[in-house]
Formats: sequence, structure tokens, C-alpha cells
Amino acid sequence: MNVVSTVDPRDGKRRATHLIETDGSGLEATAARAAAAAPWLSGQGRIGRAQMLDAIAASLESRRVDLVATAQAETGLAHARLDQELTRAALQFRMFGEVLRDGGYVEAAIDHAADTPLGRGPDLRRMLVPLGPVAVFGASNFPFAFSVAGGDTAAALAAGCPTVLKAHPSHPLTSHASAEAIGSAIRERGGPQGVTAIVYGEQAGRALVRHPAIRAAALTGSLGAARAIQAAIDERPDPIPLYAELSSVNPIVVLPGAAADRGDQIAEGLFASFTASGGQLCTKPGLAFIPSDPGGDHLVEGLRERVGSCGGTVLLNERIRDAYESGAAALERAGARVSARPRVEPGGGFTVAPTLLEVALPGLTSEIADECFGPLMVVVRYGDVADLDAVLATVPPSLTGSVHHGPGDDADVVRRLVDGLAARAGRIVFDGYPTGVRVSWAQHHGGPWPSTNTVHTSVGATSIRRFLRPLAWQDAPAWILPEELRDEYTAVSRRVDGRWEPAAGEPRG
Amino acid sequence: MNVVSTVDPRDGKRRATHLIETDGSGLEATAARAAAAAPWLSGQGRIGRAQMLDAIAASLESRRVDLVATAQAETGLAHARLDQELTRAALQFRMFGEVLRDGGYVEAAIDHAADTPLGRGPDLRRMLVPLGPVAVFGASNFPFAFSVAGGDTAAALAAGCPTVLKAHPSHPLTSHASAEAIGSAIRERGGPQGVTAIVYGEQAGRALVRHPAIRAAALTGSLGAARAIQAAIDERPDPIPLYAELSSVNPIVVLPGAAADRGDQIAEGLFASFTASGGQLCTKPGLAFIPSDPGGDHLVEGLRERVGSCGGTVLLNERIRDAYESGAAALERAGARVSARPRVEPGGGFTVAPTLLEVALPGLTSEIADECFGPLMVVVRYGDVADLDAVLATVPPSLTGSVHHGPGDDADVVRRLVDGLAARAGRIVFDGYPTGVRVSWAQHHGGPWPSTNTVHTSVGATSIRRFLRPLAWQDAPAWILPEELRDEYTAVSRRVDGRWEPAAGEPRG
Repeated sequence: MNVVSTVDPRDGKRRATHLIETDGSGLEATAARAAAAAPWLSGQGRIGRAQMLDAIAASLESRRVDLVATAQAETGLAHARLDQELTRAALQFRMFGEVLRDGGYVEAAIDHAADTPLGRGPDLRRMLVPLGPVAVFGASNFPFAFSVAGGDTAAALAAGCPTVLKAHPSHPLTSHASAEAIGSAIRERGGPQGVTAIVYGEQAGRALVRHPAIRAAALTGSLGAARAIQAAIDERPDPIPLYAELSSVNPIVVLPGAAADRGDQIAEGLFASFTASGGQLCTKPGLAFIPSDPGGDHLVEGLRERVGSCGGTVLLNERIRDAYESGAAALERAGARVSARPRVEPGGGFTVAPTLLEVALPGLTSEIADECFGPLMVVVRYGDVADLDAVLATVPPSLTGSVHHGPGDDADVVRRLVDGLAARAGRIVFDGYPTGVRVSWAQHHGGPWPSTNTVHTSVGATSIRRFLRPLAWQDAPAWILPEELRDEYTAVSRRVDGRWEPAAGEPRG
Repeated sequence: MNVVSTVDPRDGKRRATHLIETDGSGLEATAARAAAAAPWLSGQGRIGRAQMLDAIAASLESRRVDLVATAQAETGLAHARLDQELTRAALQFRMFGEVLRDGGYVEAAIDHAADTPLGRGPDLRRMLVPLGPVAVFGASNFPFAFSVAGGDTAAALAAGCPTVLKAHPSHPLTSHASAEAIGSAIRERGGPQGVTAIVYGEQAGRALVRHPAIRAAALTGSLGAARAIQAAIDERPDPIPLYAELSSVNPIVVLPGAAADRGDQIAEGLFASFTASGGQLCTKPGLAFIPSDPGGDHLVEGLRERVGSCGGTVLLNERIRDAYESGAAALERAGARVSARPRVEPGGGFTVAPTLLEVALPGLTSEIADECFGPLMVVVRYGDVADLDAVLATVPPSLTGSVHHGPGDDADVVRRLVDGLAARAGRIVFDGYPTGVRVSWAQHHGGPWPSTNTVHTSVGATSIRRFLRPLAWQDAPAWILPEELRDEYTAVSRRVDGRWEPAAGEPRG
């Protein structure tokens, strides 16, 4: 029995917990319970599952004080940030409750029997159904919103898929407490134990995605972690989808008109965006293109002042701290010079100094354009906006790309930049910052590899699509159809004989 | 230069064509042209692309006589079948024209800026955009509808993705003529050469999916072919999705009530379904569960008579012929006995005898439950319907599962069977046959591995989703948004602040 340990990143001390790593027989029992729970979860129907998600949200909030304190001791993140993250986690469960009540996500479609150019076509009815038990890998940097109580869990449960969570080794106690909060809400509704479960240990994680009962996996983490999980999946006879959200440098372009118009404001916004939560956000802007002109100089001066006078920040764990320091050193070796870095007392934990690097546009190499996770941003000074398109095409694809424009900036320049960014990012941000991802219907959190490996989002209402598969019924008697596919059902919008029919009660224009 | 050759399966003779295998520089030029054509195709907009698809359909139909004659000499399929398949191919292009005019497929969503529990949320707008150039691998068994002029091509072009077709070696001249028909329609509309292209040869196919310009691949073919293409994709630094439609045994259960009520009719339907097009359909029923009772005896006798008195059938190529004969022999070795097989004159081509095999339920092993491509069906005789659930759970997942029920069959039995089949198939057919896949909005052609490797369909309106990715705009000025995301646009249904808004002109209930 391997005892699970936890480290407080504020002092770097490791201590044992009451948890043990999941062994082979534990994993087998967990996977079997997940498979056995699927019919109960699916049988709750959309409304039953919506009520369950609301109950989970309430359960998380009722344990807010304990959860936030536990997470703070395991992540070193600020209390206010963790408090807000728990609010976000609860919001995510409630949002999927709305998604379920709306019901459009099942993409119900009915084609009545009809004559076609190929003869009589049968009656066909299609909707999306749960994929089956899902493995979710918690992230280090969001102990709530992308971990056990995170969006993947909420989306999978909403879809009707039991979930097995692999706890991130950085916050096992938070993971355990989150699983308890979720599990108790499900048990109170009469749900079997297998609706959600949690496993500990790397070996258990790999065994989990190899288990035949598991039908999909979701991961927010590093490229290396995704490759390891994919390698385990590749050992299966039957492939399953891995939905991975990975690495992103999130370029941000400040055009000369914006720099001249609101340089101070942008300096403040950029500083907050790349240092918030210790820069340990997948949407942290890692590359900022700023003009080499007086407006740009003033903006960069504002950044330097803020970085130079800020304090140290505690990173999540030793591995991330080491990667940050070696990553920053590699960028400097590649030619980025230190523009600002405060002197920081070493202390006992994983404290580092936020860093502003600077390079002139011609010196931007692929080494410098690589993501460095943590509170570091590279300012790239450019002379001519016409040079930006070609350079941005060499920056790795990202979750986001941002453009700040202002008076005097040419609309065609903006359009060209946006076209270039749109080909290499999942979200284009105008006059703002990529961090602070809104959880809503129109959100997209994903982008071309290496930022993600799928054509789906991992945040927002449509992320539920990852855990669903279509099923069609041909010439089925009405009594065997799911209610959403019966002729008389009107509670969800559907496509009937090729035309959208809004749900009854929806606005009719 | 390797000359491409073609074989007439009716006499087995190989002859040279005027085509040559695509070499490395040819492939490079083709991929570059595809990438260069993407902005033109996307710039046509939904309506422009709909008109282009209509023009392609008309172009295919205007060459019907030549295309069908060419395909007949390369596939040995019946004239009527090929004629109908060309109609289906044209229909598929027209259906995607409808999908584009409807516009709901872009999943437009707008969340206006609003106060949220996490503070002020930005304005977010999301829709699906083209993924980029797509590689399509033609199938042997559908020279039109799943090949160069097939549904994957139609869906990808509709999505706005240039396509590069890998011609199937069984019908290079049909592929070439189809590409000419499509290409001429695109050129007449001013489209660049790269909107669609065709390559020949296995090496070119592998190089194609390794090319950085290619953003997805679609394949209808064997498990082996899919594994080879996936292995080539795995050599890329950036993974791309492979949408593969593979292998399927399509179990069909005839309940005692149905056998007693309409045994003759079912014998006729089953015979037609497993022998049509030489049984070379991915939806061919390969396993028929028929009761061991007088009704079942009569039904099986009807099958035997039809099979015993039918003629030989020409298979598509030598490889498929050999696999059919060795596959049938393997089933016999595994314990299935020949129930009926006509005597067939050998002839010069790839002619084989349709085969009806039979086994008692306890003798159904995994070897016997394996797909044998071609005109062969295994009848499994069962004594007690209660035994079927456990047995069906051991049959490989399929594209389809079918149930025939009739007077006296218990509704609970039907429900249990359907639940079991639904977990292991993509389409449940009631009192009918899986072949004859309707091309429509509610179709789903896909199923758990090994029938497909995705959570998407390869037939029907929603197959367009495979070639799209989400893109979100945050706080974008209206002038830079796609028209579908501007506030005042009403021509497509959208989700605005979480509520469906039907397109103007749609029925309001």
C-alpha cells in the first residue's frame, strides 16, 4: 500500500495523508461500479440529471470554507482566487443543469418516412446518447474548476456518463474532499456509488484508460501527460477519444494606435493577465507584440515598473517551479533579455520572481515563442505592422489570440491579423486579455494542436458534445422511443423533416 | 513513373490506364494547391458553396452514362445499382446544399456581455468554421457514393474544406472521371484548381495524411487500411482526426412472433439484403438470429431455396474475392455448416457463390461472429429468446442492429434486446433491413469500434460536423464578425444568450 502524500507549496514540506494509491483490484472494482451506474444515470433523464447537478453545486458551496482552505494548503493559490474558482465550479454544474433543461444538446432530429429519389425512405429518428463511463484527469492549476469538481466532470455527468476521476498528485486532499462533496449529493438522490469515483496514483491513471469500461478520457495538462495517456489508450484493442487541453502561448498584439491611446491601461491589464494565479493559466499571454514607438515605449515602461515592484509568487509544485526556472533560463539563452524581474527572498517553498523578457521582432525564434508556464511574458518589439503577419504564422497555435487596436490603426491591418490568428487559435480577443474564461453557451476553449487535440471545446455549454454519440432509430414503434423523439413531444427544439422546430414556450420571433 | 492499371472483375483482366501514380513532387504541389484554395472556398460563403454543390450534382448527372459504364467495367456491379448510386451521389451534394442554405450547422451562438457570478462577462460569439484541407480515401464498394464523388467529399466541400481524394485502386478510371466532373463544375464557377484534387497510389495516400496542409482524413474501408493510415498520421508532429468507417457484422434478430407472422416476407427481405451488390455493403446483415420453431424453420427454408437457386455474383476485386473464400472457409472450420450454396460456374472473373451458413446458438463463437465481406450470412438458430441478450453482448459492435417483432412477442423482450443493441450499434432497425441507408438529416451511420472510430456519422446532414471546428470572438467589433454572428442577422437559427432563436421565416409553432 502506497500512502498518498501532499506538499504545501508555501513551505515545500511533504506530509502523508490518509489516502492510499489505488491498486489493480481497486481500479477494477471502481471501473465495474462506473459501468454498473450508467443505467441509473441515464435513467434519471435530462431533468433528473439537472436536479442532481444543482444538488452537486449546492453541496460544493456548502463546504466552501473547508474546500478553499484545503486547496490553499495544497496549491498556494490566493484565498480570493480559490474562493472565486469554487464559485466557478458550482456555476459550471448549474450551467449544465440549464443545458439539460433546454435539451437542444441532444440534437433531436426526425425524418418521417417519405418518398425520395432513391425510393421510399424509412422513418428515421436520431439523437445524442451518453458515450459511457469517462476518465477525467484533474489539472494542477485549477484544483476545483478543472479537477474533480471541474467542467469535464460536470459535462460528463450532464451527458449521462459516470465519471472516474484521477486525482492530480498536487492536491489529493482537495480532490478527495471534492469527490466527497459530489458523491454525497448523488447518494442523497439515491444514486449508486459508481456515478462518480476517484483514483490515486499514476499507475491507476494509466490502467483506468486501458479499462474496457471506460469510453472516453478528458485531460487538462501538459503535452507530456497527454502523450503518456494516449500511449496507454493505444494499448487498447478499441480506441477511445482523448480530449486533451494542453499548451498555449496566447499571442497578443498591441497595435500602435492602441498603445498611444491607452498604454497605461494596457500595461495594467497585461501585467494582471500574465501574473494572476502565478501565471499558471493555460490562457496566460506569453508573447506580447508591442510597437517600437513612443506609445510602445511608454507601455513597456509601465510593464517594467509593475513587474519590478511586485513580490514573489508561490508556484503550485516543485516540478512547475523547476520548469519555470529552467524555461526562463532557456529563453534568456535564446536571446530574450530580462526587462524586469523583482528581487525575491528565497523562502522555504516554491516561490519565484515574475519575469518580463524582451526581444526585438527579428530576434523572435521558435525557442522564444515556446510556452513557459508561470508568471513570465516575452515582449516582442516590432517596427512595422506589416511584418507581424509572417511572424505570427510561426508562433505555435494557441487557445487564444488577442488584438488591441485604437485610433489610427488600419481596419485592413486588423482584419489581416485576425485572419492569421483565427487560423491558429480557438478564440480571438479584441482589446482585452485571454485570461478569465467566461463559462457560457458561446465559449470556445480549444485550438489547433498543440493547444488541444480535438475539434471540441473543454469549457462552456457545448463541451457536453464530447461525451455523447449519435444513435438512430429506424421505423421504431413510438413506445420504444426516448421521449425526445416522439412525435408529440415539444419540450426540446428539434429538426423535423429538415426544419428547425423550436421547443414549445420558446420565443417565436 | 508507375502507370496505374485497372482490372475488370468480370473477366479478371488487368490493363494499363492513361493515369500515373502520384509521386512526391506531385503530392507536394497538390497539397499546396489545396491549402491555397481554402480562402476562395471559405470566401464563397454558405450560399455560394450551396450553388457550387448543386452544380457538382448536375455535372455528375450530365455524365451519368459514361460514369456508370466506366464504373461497371471496374466494379462488376449491376448497371441498375450503379445508376442508383450515381443518383445517390448527386443527392448527397444537393442535401449539403440544403444544409448550407439552412445554416444551422454552424451552431451560431451569441452571449452578450453580462454580469455573472464571476464578474462582468465579455461579449462572446461562437460558430463552426472550416477545419482546412481534408484527405478522403475512396472505398472499393461504392465507386460513387463513398468515393471521389462521395459523401465525405460533399461534406468537406460544404464545410468549406478543399479535398484531396485518394483514388481506390479498384476503380481508378471511375475516380478520374468523377474528379473531372466535380472539377469542371468548380472551374466553371471560377474556383481554383486546388478546391478538389485526386492522387493515385498507396504511397501517395500515406504521404497525403502526413502532409502539414492536411487537417483531417476520412476513410471508408477495412480495419487494416485504417490502421495503416493511422500509423502514417502518427508520424506527424501534430495529430489530425481520422474519421474511419470500417467493419460491421450487423446482427439481426427475428423474434418468434415475427417469424410466424411473416416468415416468407422476412426470408425475401433477408435474402435481398445480404446478397444485394454481392453482399459488399458495410450494412450487410452477417448474422441472423432465427428461432428454432416451425415459423423459424419455414423462414430458413425460404432462405435456403432462394440462396440455392440464385446465380454467382462477381466481387469487386481479387483481394475481396480471396478474402471472401478464405473467410467462408474459416467460418465453416469454426463450426458453421453450409445451409445453402448454389453451384456456380467458375468463369474468368472474380465470381463467387452466395452462401448461407447455419449454426445453433450454443455454437456461436467469436470466430463465427466475425464479419465476412461478401454475399454470406450466418443463420443462428435459438431456442429461447432469454438467451439472446447475453449472446448479443458478445457480438462485435456494429453500424446497425435489427429486430423483427410480431404478434405475441413480448414488449419487454423487445425493449431488452433494443437496449442491448443500442449499446453496441449506431442505428436500430425495426422490422426491416440495415442495407439501403437513407441520406437525410436524422441518419446516423457510425457505431462503436470496430464499426467506426468516432462519435460522428459518415452519412447524412450531420456528417459535416467532422470537418468543422469552433471559433469564438470575444468583444469583437461588428464589422469584423462573420455575418452569421452579427446582431441583426436573422437567416440562421442561433442560440442567443442561451435561448434558441429560429431563423426568420422558420415556422414559429
